[in-house]
Amino acid sequence: MPKMLRINMSTLEAKYESVPAKYLPLGGRALTSQIVADEVPPHCHPLREFNKLVIAPGLLSGTNAPSSGRLSVGGKSPLTGGIKEANAGGICSQKIASLGIKAIVVEGIPSEQGTWIAKVSPDGAEVLAANEYAGMGTYALTASLRERYGSKVGVICSGPAGEMMLAGAGVATNDGEGNSSRYAGRGGLGAVLGSKRLKAIVIDSPSTFGAPVHDKEAFMAASKKFATILREHAVTGTGLPSYGTNVLMNIISEAGTLPVRNFSNNGRFEHANDVGGESLAATAKARGGRVAHACHPGCVIRCSNVYPMPDGKICSPVEYETAWGFGPNLNIKDLDVIAKLNYICNDAGLDTIEAGVALGVLMEAGIIPFGDGEAAIAALSEVAKGTPAGRILGNGAEFVGKAYGVTRVPTVKGQGIPAYDPRSCKGMGVTYSTTPMGADHTAGYAVTANILKVGGFVDPTLPEGQVELSRNLQVATAAVDASGLCLFVAFPVLDNPEGLPTIVEMLNAQYNLTLTVDDVLALGKSILKTELTFNEGAGFTKAADRLPEFFYTDKLAPHNTVFDVSQAEIEGIFSGINPK
Amino acid sequence: MPKMLRINMSTLEAKYESVPAKYLPLGGRALTSQIVADEVPPHCHPLREFNKLVIAPGLLSGTNAPSSGRLSVGGKSPLTGGIKEANAGGICSQKIASLGIKAIVVEGIPSEQGTWIAKVSPDGAEVLAANEYAGMGTYALTASLRERYGSKVGVICSGPAGEMMLAGAGVATNDGEGNSSRYAGRGGLGAVLGSKRLKAIVIDSPSTFGAPVHDKEAFMAASKKFATILREHAVTGTGLPSYGTNVLMNIISEAGTLPVRNFSNNGRFEHANDVGGESLAATAKARGGRVAHACHPGCVIRCSNVYPMPDGKICSPVEYETAWGFGPNLNIKDLDVIAKLNYICNDAGLDTIEAGVALGVLMEAGIIPFGDGEAAIAALSEVAKGTPAGRILGNGAEFVGKAYGVTRVPTVKGQGIPAYDPRSCKGMGVTYSTTPMGADHTAGYAVTANILKVGGFVDPTLPEGQVELSRNLQVATAAVDASGLCLFVAFPVLDNPEGLPTIVEMLNAQYNLTLTVDDVLALGKSILKTELTFNEGAGFTKAADRLPEFFYTDKLAPHNTVFDVSQAEIEGIFSGINPK
Repeated sequence: MPKMLRINMSTLEAKYESVPAKYLPLGGRALTSQIVADEVPPHCHPLREFNKLVIAPGLLSGTNAPSSGRLSVGGKSPLTGGIKEANAGGICSQKIASLGIKAIVVEGIPSEQGTWIAKVSPDGAEVLAANEYAGMGTYALTASLRERYGSKVGVICSGPAGEMMLAGAGVATNDGEGNSSRYAGRGGLGAVLGSKRLKAIVIDSPSTFGAPVHDKEAFMAASKKFATILREHAVTGTGLPSYGTNVLMNIISEAGTLPVRNFSNNGRFEHANDVGGESLAATAKARGGRVAHACHPGCVIRCSNVYPMPDGKICSPVEYETAWGFGPNLNIKDLDVIAKLNYICNDAGLDTIEAGVALGVLMEAGIIPFGDGEAAIAALSEVAKGTPAGRILGNGAEFVGKAYGVTRVPTVKGQGIPAYDPRSCKGMGVTYSTTPMGADHTAGYAVTANILKVGGFVDPTLPEGQVELSRNLQVATAAVDASGLCLFVAFPVLDNPEGLPTIVEMLNAQYNLTLTVDDVLALGKSILKTELTFNEGAGFTKAADRLPEFFYTDKLAPHNTVFDVSQAEIEGIFSGINPK
Repeated sequence: MPKMLRINMSTLEAKYESVPAKYLPLGGRALTSQIVADEVPPHCHPLREFNKLVIAPGLLSGTNAPSSGRLSVGGKSPLTGGIKEANAGGICSQKIASLGIKAIVVEGIPSEQGTWIAKVSPDGAEVLAANEYAGMGTYALTASLRERYGSKVGVICSGPAGEMMLAGAGVATNDGEGNSSRYAGRGGLGAVLGSKRLKAIVIDSPSTFGAPVHDKEAFMAASKKFATILREHAVTGTGLPSYGTNVLMNIISEAGTLPVRNFSNNGRFEHANDVGGESLAATAKARGGRVAHACHPGCVIRCSNVYPMPDGKICSPVEYETAWGFGPNLNIKDLDVIAKLNYICNDAGLDTIEAGVALGVLMEAGIIPFGDGEAAIAALSEVAKGTPAGRILGNGAEFVGKAYGVTRVPTVKGQGIPAYDPRSCKGMGVTYSTTPMGADHTAGYAVTANILKVGGFVDPTLPEGQVELSRNLQVATAAVDASGLCLFVAFPVLDNPEGLPTIVEMLNAQYNLTLTVDDVLALGKSILKTELTFNEGAGFTKAADRLPEFFYTDKLAPHNTVFDVSQAEIEGIFSGINPK
């Protein structure tokens, strides 16, 4: 029987309990958001005792379903003030599922100062005093825990940024080589972990593919079919394995919707190719690194990479949004500088997107110059030191804007806008505006139909059709985020009519169910409704469903567009899901 | 005919226009809030072009009505995100009214960098380049402008904090001696002035009591009667003139509701008497300073003081909330340190309450020790320098809390809670929770009936009756804030049945009206409704009408109470005024 693990940081106890029936059909984001909605008062302080951090593998995690190793992390966000789910790759989701654990709930706050870790293995779970790890970077921490508990363990942890409760802090986990570089990055959930003084959770599981499957034969057939579907699509079969997510750099710049120099008025970066996936792949290979690297066993997409840096260290991976945030967004054209900034974030426990957007605002303020990589490295290095300047930066873009009097601050609900300018990729603008997560590209990735012509085409420069596009994607994404499948499966699923039914086949075979495609979409809607209701309780209204003012007033070249999707239409996006 | 002055910082022009009929019966807060509601989009960025700063004398300002020189300043608050009215004493309200100006609207933002001032005189109004004043402290600025334009001018200005657009920045104005120490302090309106790069508005008026009065004889009779009412009440006739507002220090400590060491768990300060009004008056007099000082001509209450500091400079006045914020709240028992911190705020252009609360949170974080006056002075001195640490502090208490991971942060809607702990002065807790202004003691000063037994008695430690008390006070206060009368007239008005009718007599005689007492209360309700509606448009819901979490969980000695007024009752407080 599956079980839930409660780590109570007030009593310093870890206890298993049975899974309530209503949670049995849920996983990943469906489960984290439901537990948060059930157990966390929406108006609570995100860094005090009433918030909880919920960790859940997806429904298919721990099976042989290809690319199904996503781990969801949820809670009330210290960055947005609303509900949050962020998910990560790495090896932990499969290991947790293989231990028969549906969810780990971290709750309470110790009455005394100190630092603790939790250890979870087939023999049980316990909370251990671990003051020796206080303030440690995630690389050293993960290496130390792997040395102590074995090189196969998974580690979920916070860096110094999380311990300092900075709102830009993410939750880190590791790949098979021990790199603590897979991040449930967004929304400051690392600060929630830090507030509970739980530095790390060590997952010691002998098995990666140990989740029970009811009908193994049917499952294997569906799983194989799904792997073929992934391999045969141009994006998941060729583009991503060849160049990683950073294959997007040239594409988005060419499309004229790449945010450059803190979302200034040009959507193209003259040095895009210098920092794009093609250059990254060439440099990585030339230095003995890799592309087509898998962040967890059983991934057939393998969009990760291994980038050897000039100092001999490894940054793995350098993702598109990170390369954008530290590249074009800062007017930096040097991949080595980008990788270094990425590495600093990984080690400090910072979300790279929030850090990139925050550095862009810092440059807009004139505190450091656009294009100055060394100054950016120096500024970002302050975060782990806890200096005032570092704390400002580590609290994210909106915080930097307020500190330095900058009003061109690209955030929604307090969260930094990632690598797609909403003025000429308007479907993304709708997603940023309306997702309960704050500005989040993964919540409804309209780049598909807007730019990549996957799942149809909706002209990105026009307001028409964007709300419907974003809504459909947000519903589908919520369901995918419940499954544990990587969001990138959406590319073939949107183009291949066999895609979604095959996912349903896997779920039915695993859990002995008779779900239909409609049931899966209903799950997506149900997740969104749960999240929207939480946010209403936290005080959000539709007034928060808008972009920063400058996107409506300042045109973006080369299309010379502002964001002009009807606000009334935007505010009605979920009227069929959450009528209020 | 009265007129309005628009200072357009986009075109750098100052132009008079006629007053729309609907604005003629309004003044002070009634007029600033109405113009903001009419002209400022509630969702706009408070520091970009669509926000406006509105300055309006009260209805009775510029007449011989006693203590009627309050100047209202309004706009969308960068601190709370909602509508804001803050009012100040000093000489400007009477001078503006005497020029026949109902309101000054500062709008737009210059397209170029630079610093400007506006000059307003009987000869007209103009915007002047004034780069020489950039970054100047308010004392030097005001002295320089008085030297340039004559010692009788009034100056409305921002300090460096406002120019840096820090959310703790207030709008400063001066008393008759030129001290730039009268503040429309709360809510960051100094940052709005700073965003418009209007460093100062110089009011050059030959007259202080030049506002037109329709029936002079009736007005003088009512005005004399009102002066007698003020002089005969114990608070306005004896307590405030003898010791200033800081007469409250011993009273509030004795009542057990004085916030001490960042709102920790004791409501009494063992050194209250060292920093209270009695000690202040004795020291001020011994050093050749003054009590019973009037902040503007014609004030019969004269609660201000002139406190000579050891360095030879003058701090005038040291108010109760300031003495509390830099005294008990920081565990500081030295009036000279308090005055020094007060002076630094005045010069930098900071709200003293927000700065005091912010320093308390900084001490809670352990960045500087509680009780260390020199460290507090050093920390506060960073604000005008614009260092990262100074910018954190200058952005207010909530910002400091987020920067340093502190969760005991006494704010409501982002604004610091002043000198009355809501756990055992529960009427104030209701006001903090519900006023559209964010935590603001002046919005509904329940200390009257809770502690001072003015206007009846409602036991401050019990939840019963507090919502009704706060509502009635909030309605009456809104009306008083429209009149230009100092809020302290509320003490005799609450106790003396002749008080409110006499105010109505003055208004009727001045404007040739036939208002009743009910009309005045209806005006108060109408103001609140306008403000609440703006805040809804800005995205506020009743979820924001609550205190920080720790007030509900951590008991305050000596009464050992938490804040326990029913949240349902609180959320219904304005159901008769703004049914939603």
